[in-house]
Amino acid sequence: MSSTLAPVLDQVDSTLDESLERLFELVRIPSISTDPAFADDVAAAADWAVRDLASIGFTASLRTTPGHPMVVAHWQGPVDREAPHVLFYGHYDVQPVDPIELWQRPPFEPAIESHADGSRILLGRGTADDKGQFLTFVEACRAHVAVTGKLPIRVSVFLEGEEESGSPSLSAFLDENHDELACDLALVCDTNMWDKATPAITATLRGLVGEEVTVRCANRDLHSGLYGGPALNPIRVISGILADLHDANGAVTLPGFYEGVQEPPADVRSAWDDIGLTAADFLGPVGLSQPAGEMDRTVLEQLWTRPTAEINGIVGGYAGDGFKTVLPATVTAKVSFRLVAGQDPLAVRDAFRAFVTQRLPKDAHAEFKSHGAGPGLAVSFDSPALRTAQAALTEEWGRRALIIGGGGSIPVVGNFKRQLGMDSVMVGFGLDDDRIHSPNEKYDLNSFHKGIRSWARILAAL
Amino acid sequence: MSSTLAPVLDQVDSTLDESLERLFELVRIPSISTDPAFADDVAAAADWAVRDLASIGFTASLRTTPGHPMVVAHWQGPVDREAPHVLFYGHYDVQPVDPIELWQRPPFEPAIESHADGSRILLGRGTADDKGQFLTFVEACRAHVAVTGKLPIRVSVFLEGEEESGSPSLSAFLDENHDELACDLALVCDTNMWDKATPAITATLRGLVGEEVTVRCANRDLHSGLYGGPALNPIRVISGILADLHDANGAVTLPGFYEGVQEPPADVRSAWDDIGLTAADFLGPVGLSQPAGEMDRTVLEQLWTRPTAEINGIVGGYAGDGFKTVLPATVTAKVSFRLVAGQDPLAVRDAFRAFVTQRLPKDAHAEFKSHGAGPGLAVSFDSPALRTAQAALTEEWGRRALIIGGGGSIPVVGNFKRQLGMDSVMVGFGLDDDRIHSPNEKYDLNSFHKGIRSWARILAAL
Repeated sequence: MSSTLAPVLDQVDSTLDESLERLFELVRIPSISTDPAFADDVAAAADWAVRDLASIGFTASLRTTPGHPMVVAHWQGPVDREAPHVLFYGHYDVQPVDPIELWQRPPFEPAIESHADGSRILLGRGTADDKGQFLTFVEACRAHVAVTGKLPIRVSVFLEGEEESGSPSLSAFLDENHDELACDLALVCDTNMWDKATPAITATLRGLVGEEVTVRCANRDLHSGLYGGPALNPIRVISGILADLHDANGAVTLPGFYEGVQEPPADVRSAWDDIGLTAADFLGPVGLSQPAGEMDRTVLEQLWTRPTAEINGIVGGYAGDGFKTVLPATVTAKVSFRLVAGQDPLAVRDAFRAFVTQRLPKDAHAEFKSHGAGPGLAVSFDSPALRTAQAALTEEWGRRALIIGGGGSIPVVGNFKRQLGMDSVMVGFGLDDDRIHSPNEKYDLNSFHKGIRSWARILAAL
Repeated sequence: MSSTLAPVLDQVDSTLDESLERLFELVRIPSISTDPAFADDVAAAADWAVRDLASIGFTASLRTTPGHPMVVAHWQGPVDREAPHVLFYGHYDVQPVDPIELWQRPPFEPAIESHADGSRILLGRGTADDKGQFLTFVEACRAHVAVTGKLPIRVSVFLEGEEESGSPSLSAFLDENHDELACDLALVCDTNMWDKATPAITATLRGLVGEEVTVRCANRDLHSGLYGGPALNPIRVISGILADLHDANGAVTLPGFYEGVQEPPADVRSAWDDIGLTAADFLGPVGLSQPAGEMDRTVLEQLWTRPTAEINGIVGGYAGDGFKTVLPATVTAKVSFRLVAGQDPLAVRDAFRAFVTQRLPKDAHAEFKSHGAGPGLAVSFDSPALRTAQAALTEEWGRRALIIGGGGSIPVVGNFKRQLGMDSVMVGFGLDDDRIHSPNEKYDLNSFHKGIRSWARILAAL
């Protein structure tokens, strides 16, 4: 341990209450980026982040975009050594809170809940995704500066306010600010630990193709008593198409879907097998027992290295209380494909649209709407920065940090690679039960506390 | 023609304006039975009907029920002859008016619209369903009494105020007033003509089994990035089940579904074939071209004599604007079966529940909710009353009256049969484009005028 690290970690411990107060201040701002009604709150959260970074000594500024603002901050104070210049990425916007009635307390009134087992839980929308996560890094910087008056390495911070609404302004912003943002390495804090005792670095990310399809049959809603039988029902049509998307073995049936998909190196796969994760371990906590993906793949493969198709939503006809014998004119489904490195997102989109169109009976018509198409990504398992971060995490948590795949997609990592030529190291302290897109989102106090300590170590070690 | 019929028909013609004024008075009362906010209006419409029947000479009374009142009236004045005692049925309540913004004029401010082709249209909620329809009978009685001081046969009138809200009080009311209401024959005016030139008598009605099924997989909504692949998706599960409900030929696949279904007499079916209705005739106006029911059945068979399965609604996951990569815990579908005479509604319900349950993969669970189960009905094609009515209609309209099937369900006809042992003859003058459960409901003035004349003839002929 370097001579200054121990007092920095002590500083983290002794100022944890103030760190928590700052997190709660930010969580109280309902920065829901996807809902225009909250635009002022999103802006207020960005302002808060600028002030917070400035209070540490960063040169921080708010940058307008056609959508919500970006926050960019540079450490222009002294650094320990000429080491890699890192760009830290996080996002200050949050998911919507529907259905609000399922929250046990108001989502934007954060609180600490103490459990019988001694654990303490931070409750509120954004405590985990991503306000709590990105503040672990900011607070680690604050501790270094407080103790030493400097940071170990050169650090810039880049916070987005549109991550939960598809990042519409991201790509143009990176291009326009290429020289300012292209660093040696990106650090991203928006991923999970392996479990609450085992830290993890995420090395593969699945891409995402989001499609909305509306199937229309009659030119208006019909009374099923007067037309039922002869009139084509779009819900019947779409059910058949959606049921066809998987075969009996759980594989996706889109022609060409698995083209370009690669197997991970044998040693990486065997390390995953060594984890000994059973389907029951993974699925039990959410009330399931049997993996629903490709039958000949392990749960970890289904999650990390195999692309998937999911139906994220469907609505058609009368869905309220009671019953209405309507024969609807339309039905709409939202379908997404999680992609792995090697798949072409636009080819998948085209294959899906052709798949649907070919299955439409006479009198049925489909309209498609794109909700984005981003590729999967695999970062090198062997980069020095990744191995350094792995060692620092292992030291902090007292258990070997795993290098894992990510099920979710963090599109910005692809943007960093393509637009700024920059690799990312993804370290995060979320847990699978954080309910990050659901009611009652939480973040373990332990994740927050040891997360700050972890970043303090990584910054010192890089 | 009997010696008194001609002056009665003249009376109908010469007093049409007053008949219309009475209809408009009743249409102005917003008697929406399903919405408790309109309870006083429903009661006001019942009072209006009592006064109106009394003004002709009926002994009319309002009868309270746990819901909206019934109106019962008996003709105790002189009759021409001891003929069948008929019970006429109609309903004075109407459908809600949502979405109100689609109405071209206020729904409860009736008006006459003249068209370029010379036709005149009555506009307003209830002009057709069922205020305009049941008043055709009442006004026919008025004309007979005005000209002859008596009615041709014994007539009782029974008007319901809960037809559009599921008739919750009907069954008990019929039981409690069995002796007063059990007549030789019921006349029901709540059905349509074949087309605007061709009158029709409805001889079969489809029953209805309404089911709501919720499929649940995980114990909460999941993030598709973190769980997509291994976690079972209920929309995928229900899509497969709903797609299975029909085979490739359009037949319903529930085991035993067609048990008890009978073919209509050969002569009736060949009369339907003689109509020469093409799929394009029937489906073209709603933007369709090809019948979606059993491939080996004509459109009329699919509509009148064959049971069907329909998906009336489905909702699950995120269905709002934008996109949410949620993997939902549940999905709910509303499914209905239109039944024909001979099918057992409870057997169909059981078969559906077994069908779903047997197709659930491990980890998927289904909950069912019943929205009613009523049998289909076929009245005799050969009853003397039906043939008499057919002849009278043929004379009035100058075109052979068709004996047809009904796609919708009129449950009261089943109640009359089961509870009062009474057959019904269903004669109505609605048209398929009357928009009876939609905005801009209308009734052709011709339907109203010749409807009154038709009943005047039927009363004289029975």
